[in-house]
Amino acid sequence: MLTRYTLASLLCLVSVRLAAGQDRTIVPAGSVASPHVNKEVEQVLRLQQEAWNHHDLEGFMTGYWNSPELTFFSGAHETSGWQGALERYRKTYQSEGKEMGKLEFSDLRIEALGSDAAFVRGAWHLTMSDGKTPHGLFTLVFRKFPDGWKIVHDHTSAE
Amino acid sequence: MLTRYTLASLLCLVSVRLAAGQDRTIVPAGSVASPHVNKEVEQVLRLQQEAWNHHDLEGFMTGYWNSPELTFFSGAHETSGWQGALERYRKTYQSEGKEMGKLEFSDLRIEALGSDAAFVRGAWHLTMSDGKTPHGLFTLVFRKFPDGWKIVHDHTSAE
Repeated sequence: MLTRYTLASLLCLVSVRLAAGQDRTIVPAGSVASPHVNKEVEQVLRLQQEAWNHHDLEGFMTGYWNSPELTFFSGAHETSGWQGALERYRKTYQSEGKEMGKLEFSDLRIEALGSDAAFVRGAWHLTMSDGKTPHGLFTLVFRKFPDGWKIVHDHTSAE
Repeated sequence: MLTRYTLASLLCLVSVRLAAGQDRTIVPAGSVASPHVNKEVEQVLRLQQEAWNHHDLEGFMTGYWNSPELTFFSGAHETSGWQGALERYRKTYQSEGKEMGKLEFSDLRIEALGSDAAFVRGAWHLTMSDGKTPHGLFTLVFRKFPDGWKIVHDHTSAE
């Protein structure tokens, strides 16, 4: 009885670790494996990358929470609201003499924080027509809304 | 009866909003007011600020998850692990010709993401003895561990 119980516990532990895709020594209280969360969040980022590379800024912006409470940090500058973020992107990448370039996200690490929140660590890399390659890191906080996972906060930094 | 019910509903709504300390039009699914989370996380940051201003870098570092999995983003550079973060701070603020200065956190916005996770948006400002004032923004992700709330990811950027 003890042996069967122990075996069942071990199998359970192994399957939880496999599901989490990681092997943490210390797991925060209440931490759960959420492979479906990771897939859904990754899909939002994949769609954003595709939209950007079709020069579809409005499509790219559907990944963000359409709210005045959305926040966007870059350097020492904070942009507030979905509209503000859109205008910042337009000014930086679509105004006279600017271009969107080809965007690539890499080294994505998506971590579920309960059932309705997640955060993403990753790197961004742009390839411009003149050969320049602006790049850097980002931290995104996602919340789950009735219409899906949306970025509620974006912190982006460049070299 | 209808009037008493309506009044009770209104009072309930008002008290929930007061407890949340915010007035959101759209609240993510499962979002809860967590004033105790906010207080506990704010206390970690207050202790960090005090430790820094006593030039106690080890005390400051107790706010971070002591794990090789801690991540620290700055510009386009990622530092991995608690030890790596400590060494980065030592090099930047305690090596030959460097100083820690006086640190102030401001504009803190702490948002609970369930019972064991939270994220913080805020600004940092250093005052150096030569009058320089490096400053910028940060995004912190906190998880709750058996020994309290710890930063598991720090994204800091400067002007």
